[in-house]
Amino acid sequence: MTVKAYGAHAADQPLVGLDIERRAPGPGDVQIDIAFCGVCHSDLHTVRSEWSGTRYPCVPGHEIVGRVSAVGGDVSGFKVGDTVGVGCLVDSCQHCAACGEGLEQYCTNGFTGTYNGATQDPPGYTLGGYSQRIVVDQRFVLRIRHPDAQLAAVAPLLCAGITTYSPLRHWNVGPGKKVGIVGIGGLGHMGIKLAHAMGAHVVAFTTSESKRADAHKLGADEVVVSRDASAMAAHAGSFDFILDTVAAPHVLDAFTSLLKRDGTLCLVGVPADPHPSPSIGLLIFGRRSIAGSLIGGIAETQEMLDFCAEHGIVSDIEMIPADGINEAYERMLRSDVKYRFVIDIASLAA
Amino acid sequence: MTVKAYGAHAADQPLVGLDIERRAPGPGDVQIDIAFCGVCHSDLHTVRSEWSGTRYPCVPGHEIVGRVSAVGGDVSGFKVGDTVGVGCLVDSCQHCAACGEGLEQYCTNGFTGTYNGATQDPPGYTLGGYSQRIVVDQRFVLRIRHPDAQLAAVAPLLCAGITTYSPLRHWNVGPGKKVGIVGIGGLGHMGIKLAHAMGAHVVAFTTSESKRADAHKLGADEVVVSRDASAMAAHAGSFDFILDTVAAPHVLDAFTSLLKRDGTLCLVGVPADPHPSPSIGLLIFGRRSIAGSLIGGIAETQEMLDFCAEHGIVSDIEMIPADGINEAYERMLRSDVKYRFVIDIASLAA
Repeated sequence: MTVKAYGAHAADQPLVGLDIERRAPGPGDVQIDIAFCGVCHSDLHTVRSEWSGTRYPCVPGHEIVGRVSAVGGDVSGFKVGDTVGVGCLVDSCQHCAACGEGLEQYCTNGFTGTYNGATQDPPGYTLGGYSQRIVVDQRFVLRIRHPDAQLAAVAPLLCAGITTYSPLRHWNVGPGKKVGIVGIGGLGHMGIKLAHAMGAHVVAFTTSESKRADAHKLGADEVVVSRDASAMAAHAGSFDFILDTVAAPHVLDAFTSLLKRDGTLCLVGVPADPHPSPSIGLLIFGRRSIAGSLIGGIAETQEMLDFCAEHGIVSDIEMIPADGINEAYERMLRSDVKYRFVIDIASLAA
Repeated sequence: MTVKAYGAHAADQPLVGLDIERRAPGPGDVQIDIAFCGVCHSDLHTVRSEWSGTRYPCVPGHEIVGRVSAVGGDVSGFKVGDTVGVGCLVDSCQHCAACGEGLEQYCTNGFTGTYNGATQDPPGYTLGGYSQRIVVDQRFVLRIRHPDAQLAAVAPLLCAGITTYSPLRHWNVGPGKKVGIVGIGGLGHMGIKLAHAMGAHVVAFTTSESKRADAHKLGADEVVVSRDASAMAAHAGSFDFILDTVAAPHVLDAFTSLLKRDGTLCLVGVPADPHPSPSIGLLIFGRRSIAGSLIGGIAETQEMLDFCAEHGIVSDIEMIPADGINEAYERMLRSDVKYRFVIDIASLAA
């Protein structure tokens, strides 16, 4: 079937309306009429082939929410009309150790990304959520329990939410823990909300004094402007865990030095150029770690969505029509968004 | 009391014989007549003030074994004639969280090193084990259960042994685990022996094909020459834990890429110049960590000594007289030692 989408024909071209093909639902498939799709910085990197390897036309989008409009004969967990979501993954090998543990994001045979991933469907690679409809294996479909009125603001949970939730859980963030969130953007604002809801003492780090009030509103107990050396020094050796959402190259030592013994600095962004090489002495004299974490598996993404529904957590969003995406990308590059753009997919029909 | 020692009067001077003062044993002190002292690379760094802050005259040595020659009135755990050891620490605050957990090496108020550490004793800083006698608080004295004939080869366990044992234990190395040891020197050769005794599958990494046979003799199940890209690639994504004992700057990505999901690369050496900045992508796509670890606490050092006595583990050593130390330093700089120099302290009396 043909559906309307928004995508780019080349790395140096703006996104435009285009028609794409979706497969007819197979026995295990769920067909979803997309209502909203969040805009992730990865979308921009891929559309512009900044990570190389992008195939065109490219339709990005992996923060997808909508309603089931058809199911295959073997699908028992979803029915027409259900409110569902799709995140960064639409397939994985299902037989490696990682898949066996529900950690499909670390599939040793390589997961299939929601866009620009290899697939048997035409055109040979996946096309993402900037489109009216998507057909996804039931094992990669998430159930959404938030009220309907919040649906648009749920979309970013599928990437920004799980990318911050998974490391916070993995490193046991909760009551009695002091947790830092570095960067107050699409990911960071979710990190603050989630760590706060998990019961931790949350300190937000920002380079911008202007974000102080906002960070408190999001749930930060303390806000530190990271350019203020004395404010930073006051927190030396005091953090159990710091989640660093900033992909731009920066001095990691500024944060590893704030960790307690056995503390972890976890990065979730791949910098285009390397960070300055971190001090090994800071790791050794404190048995500290620098780690990385990638989105989350399907089971944990469902757990995150349920946690957010229970705690009334959604993303702070700015809604745009599909034809506003090129301007939105420019604003995203200037960090001029509080805190996530979401495309109203109904605008594609216009 | 005055005892003979070997030390340096300045950063650019060779080590020479000199007389130093030791305090009379206080109520909680153990006086030890030193039999042997291992030679650690840290000794050389400190004597030459390569880490700055060295006070002179400097008497290094923190791999000390000997026999108790006197005890204070409050000492119940040791008696004259006992075979004992002293490692890198001779004091700590005893009231911070780290000390409370028996992790004196991470004392938040700063432990007192066995040499060049602040003390009330003359000359105001500690003097190490290149000397006939030392007086140490009973809480920092270790019991040695090895046969007497092995005593010299036990000395390096007090630093090289615990520095490798502690991270291997902390990261749960044991049966069913695949463990890498990078560098086959003073630390690395102990890491191979210990990881093997813990029941792990041990892979030794060396830049030198000539060390292959030795590494197998030490207990390595496999040996990989790290300059051999295809040999390295064959181990991609397969290690639970890699202990990197090489302090010289090197490409950490070569080893993080060999870790399984959730694997840890642990460094125990501080490079004089930074390592090339590690790939964050390798950490994120595998939830891997780069960590550091510092020697070990007193309780764990005792555990390590008991483990080594039980498994018949000692260091491979080359014995030298005290006046051979300057030449030994030069050979150590060329990695021309298998695998640790130990000073026969009886030579000081000559």
